[in-house]
Amino acid sequence: MDYTGRQQRLAQALDGLKLDALLVTHAVNVRYVCGFTGSNAVLVAGPRRCILLTDGRYAEQANAEAQNVRVVIARGALLPEAAKILKKQRTAAAGIEAEHMPVAQRSILRGLLPKKVRLRETTGVVEQLRMMKEAAEISNLRQSVLLGARLFDTALEAVRPGVREIGVAAELEYAARRLGAEAMAFDTIVAAGRRSALPHGRASAAPIPARGFVVLDWGVKLAGYCSDQTRTVHVGTPDSEMRGQYMAVREAQQAAMEAVRAGATAGDVDRAARQALQHSGLARYFTHSTGHGVGLEIHEAPRLGKGLHERLRAGMIVTIEPGVYVPGKGGVRIEDMLCVTETGCEVLTPTTRELITL
Amino acid sequence: MDYTGRQQRLAQALDGLKLDALLVTHAVNVRYVCGFTGSNAVLVAGPRRCILLTDGRYAEQANAEAQNVRVVIARGALLPEAAKILKKQRTAAAGIEAEHMPVAQRSILRGLLPKKVRLRETTGVVEQLRMMKEAAEISNLRQSVLLGARLFDTALEAVRPGVREIGVAAELEYAARRLGAEAMAFDTIVAAGRRSALPHGRASAAPIPARGFVVLDWGVKLAGYCSDQTRTVHVGTPDSEMRGQYMAVREAQQAAMEAVRAGATAGDVDRAARQALQHSGLARYFTHSTGHGVGLEIHEAPRLGKGLHERLRAGMIVTIEPGVYVPGKGGVRIEDMLCVTETGCEVLTPTTRELITL
Repeated sequence: MDYTGRQQRLAQALDGLKLDALLVTHAVNVRYVCGFTGSNAVLVAGPRRCILLTDGRYAEQANAEAQNVRVVIARGALLPEAAKILKKQRTAAAGIEAEHMPVAQRSILRGLLPKKVRLRETTGVVEQLRMMKEAAEISNLRQSVLLGARLFDTALEAVRPGVREIGVAAELEYAARRLGAEAMAFDTIVAAGRRSALPHGRASAAPIPARGFVVLDWGVKLAGYCSDQTRTVHVGTPDSEMRGQYMAVREAQQAAMEAVRAGATAGDVDRAARQALQHSGLARYFTHSTGHGVGLEIHEAPRLGKGLHERLRAGMIVTIEPGVYVPGKGGVRIEDMLCVTETGCEVLTPTTRELITL
Repeated sequence: MDYTGRQQRLAQALDGLKLDALLVTHAVNVRYVCGFTGSNAVLVAGPRRCILLTDGRYAEQANAEAQNVRVVIARGALLPEAAKILKKQRTAAAGIEAEHMPVAQRSILRGLLPKKVRLRETTGVVEQLRMMKEAAEISNLRQSVLLGARLFDTALEAVRPGVREIGVAAELEYAARRLGAEAMAFDTIVAAGRRSALPHGRASAAPIPARGFVVLDWGVKLAGYCSDQTRTVHVGTPDSEMRGQYMAVREAQQAAMEAVRAGATAGDVDRAARQALQHSGLARYFTHSTGHGVGLEIHEAPRLGKGLHERLRAGMIVTIEPGVYVPGKGGVRIEDMLCVTETGCEVLTPTTRELITL
């Protein structure tokens, strides 16, 4: 990972914001900027150097992991230590990560600093850098996607009428661990029958009915990077309405994928999916956005939603995941991860998108 | 669950704080106050009634789960809706949960409200209520602890030299799911050999060595309530130093348990564990606090740490978990959950605390 380059780009961003320092407190952002993975850390990022604050539990780990930064082991809380550094560096304006720092922390920090030090709210400074993936990150994400995709076979074996949704999740997660996943990237979704119409139907104790869709949405973490994939299968023979619903989602996903290329906006991609669903009259049942970035976090920038102007760039990794949820009947979602290229995209997920009937 | 009682106690707390309303934004606190488990919610708690705001995805779920509140489905973001309610109610002073609300959210909210509405930072208002468990909560926690404890046998079968730590975690988590756990309560810790000296050693790809301690720390969620348990086993025959270390931790745990009763302070319990370790000269290797509350969250109030004045009350559920970590050698931690009673405590964890050699 190019920590030096990341720190340089962060310094440029601070320069653009006229900040002397940024207190990076969101753990994933700390990891991105310097490689440290401990749970208690503040990174004081400045124009020339970064200082990593953590506590004694992590002394060994910080020295082993953190790249190109000075490590300071605080004896007590980290914010007083960070305030000392800001004072020593004669900081005039320091940024905080306003989307992550709780109000109470800001109040503590404010109380520790002289009035002349300005605290400025920033949003998405490190997140902007994280959108563009380096080659090593794309490689990690590719490995994570491939590991995740291998779990689909396990799920297909587990899904049958009468088995509880959490039973399917158990098999899938066990296989993930055995294949070497660090963790699941999020709570596995297994939503069967009428529950498949709940876009956020975490696996429940409900048994899989004799007939209907089963939405499976899962992801793993490998070397810190997340995978995210959804497949919808049908238990029993689907009627023509069910088949039509599935094909409509598949076509919407295809249309959105074809809209992906460097220079397209997030809104362009989202619109492609919605327009495709209008042909089949199902657009009103597509109630969420079309996709999102994936990296160290399962949901990161850019979001691919209605009317969003963010332009895609080569090297972004996003999901494309339209869904159609007919209340009281059932839902279909198909989700793959892909890498944006200059001329289009490369789909990373190797799994078939044909409708599988069990 | 006594949602009506909780809402009454919350109203009393607001009265004591001279607040007209509290915006409850921490999801677990929303669940505690009204029963709603969706991920996107703001509860506007007032002296006479509570209003729950969520989005369209959760309409059905909110109406099914939320008790004794008015449900409002917002079309867009929730904070503008909350601001409308505060204005309509002519609120003079509204509290925010300062430990949970990010700075950026507060700024948005501030911008939506007239200047005359004061926003006051509160900490731990709902958390204070959550410390005292109701009978139904204790029953849920008991079930969760019993389910969690059943996983120890699985772990004992899995632990052997050469097996990777994550392999042990995989077996344990699979068994948890099969027994009906909703989820693990936290990342399972399996730390073997020298790694057992890392108090926060999440399961890694490292193989279990031929000889040494293995610290196993795991918990499950059942009906929303967490369990938390640690056992340390020894692979191969322990030498007398290892045995001594184990016995010292066991005695420290016993001493701390004997110090638990309604009226004792958190610091009293912590001191009992530390004093016991002084006899064996190992107190300097006990680098964390003695325990913490457990409920809907794995770590909640009260914390049982050095010099803390919080008084225990009957109906609190806490862990007692002293540990001794000798760098470069190995660590031992033993952790059980117990319920504070008027005269002492009831240990909920049914697992033996004898040293098991594998």
